[in-house]
Amino acid sequence: MTDLDAHVADLCARSRPAARALALASDELRRRALLAAADALAAEGPAIQAANALDVEQARHDGLSAALIDRLRLDGKRLDSVVADLRQIAELPDPVGAILEERTIAQGIRAEKLSVPIGVVAIIFESRPNVTVDAAGLCLRSGNACILRGGKEAVHSNRALASAFRRGVERSGLPADTVQLVQTTDRALVPLLLRRDDAIDLVIPRGGEALIRHVVEVSRVPVIKHDKGVCSLYIHRAADHDMALRLIENAKCQRPAVCNAIENLLVDAAIANEFLPKVAAWAGSRVELRADSRALPLLPGAKAATEADWSTEYGELILAVAVVDDLESAIVFTERYGSHHSDGIVTADLKAAERYLAAVDSACVYHNASTRFTDGGLFGFGAEVGISTNRIHARGPMGIRELCTYKWVCRGSGQVRV
Amino acid sequence: MTDLDAHVADLCARSRPAARALALASDELRRRALLAAADALAAEGPAIQAANALDVEQARHDGLSAALIDRLRLDGKRLDSVVADLRQIAELPDPVGAILEERTIAQGIRAEKLSVPIGVVAIIFESRPNVTVDAAGLCLRSGNACILRGGKEAVHSNRALASAFRRGVERSGLPADTVQLVQTTDRALVPLLLRRDDAIDLVIPRGGEALIRHVVEVSRVPVIKHDKGVCSLYIHRAADHDMALRLIENAKCQRPAVCNAIENLLVDAAIANEFLPKVAAWAGSRVELRADSRALPLLPGAKAATEADWSTEYGELILAVAVVDDLESAIVFTERYGSHHSDGIVTADLKAAERYLAAVDSACVYHNASTRFTDGGLFGFGAEVGISTNRIHARGPMGIRELCTYKWVCRGSGQVRV
Repeated sequence: MTDLDAHVADLCARSRPAARALALASDELRRRALLAAADALAAEGPAIQAANALDVEQARHDGLSAALIDRLRLDGKRLDSVVADLRQIAELPDPVGAILEERTIAQGIRAEKLSVPIGVVAIIFESRPNVTVDAAGLCLRSGNACILRGGKEAVHSNRALASAFRRGVERSGLPADTVQLVQTTDRALVPLLLRRDDAIDLVIPRGGEALIRHVVEVSRVPVIKHDKGVCSLYIHRAADHDMALRLIENAKCQRPAVCNAIENLLVDAAIANEFLPKVAAWAGSRVELRADSRALPLLPGAKAATEADWSTEYGELILAVAVVDDLESAIVFTERYGSHHSDGIVTADLKAAERYLAAVDSACVYHNASTRFTDGGLFGFGAEVGISTNRIHARGPMGIRELCTYKWVCRGSGQVRV
Repeated sequence: MTDLDAHVADLCARSRPAARALALASDELRRRALLAAADALAAEGPAIQAANALDVEQARHDGLSAALIDRLRLDGKRLDSVVADLRQIAELPDPVGAILEERTIAQGIRAEKLSVPIGVVAIIFESRPNVTVDAAGLCLRSGNACILRGGKEAVHSNRALASAFRRGVERSGLPADTVQLVQTTDRALVPLLLRRDDAIDLVIPRGGEALIRHVVEVSRVPVIKHDKGVCSLYIHRAADHDMALRLIENAKCQRPAVCNAIENLLVDAAIANEFLPKVAAWAGSRVELRADSRALPLLPGAKAATEADWSTEYGELILAVAVVDDLESAIVFTERYGSHHSDGIVTADLKAAERYLAAVDSACVYHNASTRFTDGGLFGFGAEVGISTNRIHARGPMGIRELCTYKWVCRGSGQVRV
């Protein structure tokens, strides 16, 4: 047995008993454990910041970009915010034990569909160390044990954060192993871990496309992906132009790097002559436009788009613009090139809106609102694990409720099947 | 490109447009398509039976057991029953388009959680040809296109059934490709198909452990398993003995080959001396008992159980019997050895029952009822795709509702994120 095999075996052996203890722990105990973890993180602030300084120094030494180094940094103010977020997670309503449905099944047996934790959840993520605390907090709130595998760049920070978190949990009386951090940054561990579908019930990869692809390829454990967003806005012929421009500005520019920002703008042919010059004026030199052959003449300064543009997640101030014949063409375009994450229509025509909302099969579809609302916090879920691009179990914003599954509790009086 | 690659590419290319047409088809149209498929199956009865005769003859030639040949056989009566089942599926209430939840999210945007089809579902199964029609029917009712891969033994039957089904669907105006049958029995196709997570949204393997293991190992497509059942009944010290014996008889003997039959009997130490002789008398020479060291002296004629017995799905008239100290020991035993499928407690002590129901984490947990009730039909779901042993998305009986996912439909009035 190699060291990696031994580490995986150890992580898996510790997780199940912790998950069982957690599944049976009261709402109050899980809440207290989260507050104790928050206290421990606050108390160990200096040690955590010292560990983070090691990561930042290493990142500088390795020549990482200023943006990446900034993502990595956990100064006093950011740590305060991580602790405050954790206290908020503690106050979220308990998702465990809700009766989702009651039915009388055969022969008068009463069946309850009861919400229960999934069990052991592995979360594999990159970069920002605050994810360590968020993910651990959301799993604990929803009664799940977790195995966290963070990025190499944040290894010292993650260890300090996880240690403090575990000490807090232990003080509350729950097992520290409800939260485990993978102790090696060796990538060869990931496939070994994800072969253990006997011990791990779900894996959530959060990060770049390569990470997610790798997890999907090697995992025997069910995966809920948080994959890329190629989102679009369609400006229908009956759109209010000012509203359309406000929504384009918000959906493209408010935070271009995130998955719910738009990459494609579709403009109805009936209004292209009038509306596209307004888009050009809006974009100015700030937003790069890549246009199809019909939009190009109406967008001075735009580049010609290639086929690849329509399914590219730019993550920066670039917008691909296409003219579509009508509503149906917009739907076909969105279904063909989009990633089924978040898409919207701008129109004053309610019938057109309803047709679009029914026909576009994305996790979130919008009428007259920015795609940027696809967010667990804005949906009222409290914190979010992420935005699921899976089709089963959880779709779109994924909060603590989506970290639960269910079981059927059936109460009889001696019934036998005939 | 090999023939297999070409076949997989063709299946995948045809499925998505069919799934899109189906997702937007009305309840009435999907219902009519199912009835048309039933009519076509009835009309083509002689051809289907002739095809089935070829399979039966081949099975005889290959020396398959009488039981397997019987499972394969599709005589006039059985075909009538397949057609009648399909007509029942047509009459099930539409699971698509239900509003599962409504909420006001940020800035007054109205969000509806709407039930929608999953998309393209692959079902990989063995032996009985009626599964071809059932699976196609349930997928169509829930708006999903399907790719079916049946067992080698039923190849002629499956082709005849799928052809008739497709002709019926086409007559209704929906695309025939909503139902596609894999045309080769070459096992090498399965991994190629299951690499296409771009084209297939879910795979459901139904069959033996080896098939399910293989699918889990090679699939990049999300899997909902229908795996083995190692189920148990725990006879608590406060159980009514007559009720306990009736439930044991039903759960073990009514149909020993199915996944919701019990394999393990746990008897409370406090009643072992009195109750186990009754178990011995019940078992007689009909049921083979395999007992732990405490039960063995009280069960004349029983064999000694080995460690492997506690997690074996016998599928026949064999029952493993263990004496447990108390309720908590019964829970620990069930969690350790069971497959989290269906487990029950027999007791008149409601407090003990509630503790058991909370602590045993199986898809279905029973108090004073047979584990044999774990069944989509008996749960009132109509027909079932099977019994899911997954923890996410669908757990326990899986019907047409569990063949749906959801999307968020959000209606605003120009809101932008701040």
